[in-house]
Amino acid sequence: MVLLVKSERAPGGASGRVLHLTLDRPEARNAMSLAMVGELRAALGDAEEAGDVRAIVLRGSGGHFCAGGDLKDMAAARMSHDGAAAVAGVSARFGELCVAFARTGIAVIAAVEGTVMGGGFGLACVADVVLASETAQFRLPETSLGVVPAQIAPFLVERLGYAEARRLAVTGGKLDARQALALRLVHEVHAPEELGNAVDRVLADVLRCAPHAVAASKALIARARLQPASALIGEAATVFAQAALGPEGTEGTTAFLQKRAPSWAPR
Amino acid sequence: MVLLVKSERAPGGASGRVLHLTLDRPEARNAMSLAMVGELRAALGDAEEAGDVRAIVLRGSGGHFCAGGDLKDMAAARMSHDGAAAVAGVSARFGELCVAFARTGIAVIAAVEGTVMGGGFGLACVADVVLASETAQFRLPETSLGVVPAQIAPFLVERLGYAEARRLAVTGGKLDARQALALRLVHEVHAPEELGNAVDRVLADVLRCAPHAVAASKALIARARLQPASALIGEAATVFAQAALGPEGTEGTTAFLQKRAPSWAPR
Amino acid sequence: MVLLVKSERAPGGASGRVLHLTLDRPEARNAMSLAMVGELRAALGDAEEAGDVRAIVLRGSGGHFCAGGDLKDMAAARMSHDGAAAVAGVSARFGELCVAFARTGIAVIAAVEGTVMGGGFGLACVADVVLASETAQFRLPETSLGVVPAQIAPFLVERLGYAEARRLAVTGGKLDARQALALRLVHEVHAPEELGNAVDRVLADVLRCAPHAVAASKALIARARLQPASALIGEAATVFAQAALGPEGTEGTTAFLQKRAPSWAPR
Repeated sequence: MVLLVKSERAPGGASGRVLHLTLDRPEARNAMSLAMVGELRAALGDAEEAGDVRAIVLRGSGGHFCAGGDLKDMAAARMSHDGAAAVAGVSARFGELCVAFARTGIAVIAAVEGTVMGGGFGLACVADVVLASETAQFRLPETSLGVVPAQIAPFLVERLGYAEARRLAVTGGKLDARQALALRLVHEVHAPEELGNAVDRVLADVLRCAPHAVAASKALIARARLQPASALIGEAATVFAQAALGPEGTEGTTAFLQKRAPSWAPR
Repeated sequence: MVLLVKSERAPGGASGRVLHLTLDRPEARNAMSLAMVGELRAALGDAEEAGDVRAIVLRGSGGHFCAGGDLKDMAAARMSHDGAAAVAGVSARFGELCVAFARTGIAVIAAVEGTVMGGGFGLACVADVVLASETAQFRLPETSLGVVPAQIAPFLVERLGYAEARRLAVTGGKLDARQALALRLVHEVHAPEELGNAVDRVLADVLRCAPHAVAASKALIARARLQPASALIGEAATVFAQAALGPEGTEGTTAFLQKRAPSWAPR
Repeated sequence: MVLLVKSERAPGGASGRVLHLTLDRPEARNAMSLAMVGELRAALGDAEEAGDVRAIVLRGSGGHFCAGGDLKDMAAARMSHDGAAAVAGVSARFGELCVAFARTGIAVIAAVEGTVMGGGFGLACVADVVLASETAQFRLPETSLGVVPAQIAPFLVERLGYAEARRLAVTGGKLDARQALALRLVHEVHAPEELGNAVDRVLADVLRCAPHAVAASKALIARARLQPASALIGEAATVFAQAALGPEGTEGTTAFLQKRAPSWAPR
């Protein structure tokens, strides 16, 4: 196991669970091995299937988030009888992982420290909210090694916009925590000992939002990235009506009128 | 009437008119009723038809901008014989309003104070320029009520970009004026008593720009959001030539050579 | 000749060449004449064909970057027997130039000072990295002259995002260097006498990145602007495998293991 999976009841009496996923290869600054890719995907798939996971918190153990792709897996792929296909396969597995996290309806929070490189940089880009320790150091080392931040590229664009993604790809993408905040790669910067409290505060915000409503919002927003607003009016109206007349909308309205927290929220 | 409509000659001797639209249900922090949606659309439609409105200034009365959708209209829709269709219809009317404002060729300036919530947050996102009072407080309360900021979602993406829209949807979207400025949701923050002067300064900038040229620029920029630049060269060239050889381009060139303000501009 | 072309060996013992292109009509603040458009395209085409140009540095002579389109060429086009077609043609030539620079696989750095207007503003938007002198003053004067920043519009969107592009088009786009930095139109601001050193530092970062890997990254990022990440996994995997198993990936890996700089990098 290279991923620590800890499931907790949501704090403060909110409904459901919070899943804590910790990349756990501290001896390799949590480099993203194929095994880790597989365990992350399985953990996300299980959470989606379970249906009661409200938020996922991604972290790395040992003071680092993730040093990027594991060189040993890539070296092994290279040596296999069809090297090109094997290397492409390793790359695609990582891309599929990023897409799965970027598209899940579950809220994803990343808390990053120390090294955030290559694939780790990409993983930070797919989280909904990223909280950084002042120790965080970001980098895209791929092109300096003669390779391409290929699966990461779309998520650089999604997170930072086209122009900033291009600038980072051309210059190696070195950023400290403050610079990452200025680019909105991360959303808050904290002293290392404060990072846990910051995660708790974001979790409290997330848990006040109804889970299906959050998932529906994320899906609509993803569609809006590549479509004109006028094309989404009908779909948005249907989504709104389903939520309003469904169990969450009914509970939300009732709780509002009764001046109490709704069933999904912390008390 | 829940919308104050005031039409003024453009200041400083500029051509045409400026339309001041003030959401006027101060007892409900200007919550967006169906009647208000209808009056806003009608006011915009009239302005576009008149052809001489150079700018629209959106405000709220009583120290607030807009508290979002009116709960009474939604409750009435819920109770109608086909609740889902009725609720979806109310939602769609608001979406159509946002699209109409987002796509008009007329310059739209919003001056926001106090509560800017839900639909009010969305309306702020469709204006070309937003000036905020220090009192402005932004929020997306939908998911905490079990519903979805559905019609707003595309305009969050247009204004803030995909990643920031997603983050706000997942966390409830609470922002004060300074935070809204950092995200470029608003473009200037002023003391409440300075907001009027700030609007006047932006109006002066807008009125120096030729009205058809502004409309053509807005249309091209909207097309560029979802198309590669290479696909727009021919269209852009045609737009440029029509402007350059049309009345505005002719007057602009003549005024430039004669070292005077063109006919559309403040003296 | 209205363009100074200087080719230098890449500094620090890096492979290949750096091309310095200086707009050179200081008496007209380097206004973009048709001749200049032609010379810029030819210089870029030659650089791409040569295959060993690692970076292009764009500047203007005489303390200004570029005052925009040359009015004399436009006046001549207007007077020709088919004025509309001729004006559209001049516009399209500039648009093609911008597309060529925006899409080249070569890294493009712009160092801007003084006047950065109209077409000059557009050219700044197509560079991967823009370094500004504190003297830089940006403006989109087109609409105040009755015309449209038409070929520039797509690059405003690519660089600044849709909402900021729209705001600037509606208000005339006046920005000083600090404001341009806040919008990420430029990436660094320096005292005029420090601009050269800043270019050298960015060049050193660029030259540490393998040239074909940079070109492949830029191409993928351009595709990701208008496509969902899920649609790019296969292509990204192929691009990654080709790079990893090609000469740059092989040299990069070898150099890493041998703890030396790879062949393309400064020593």
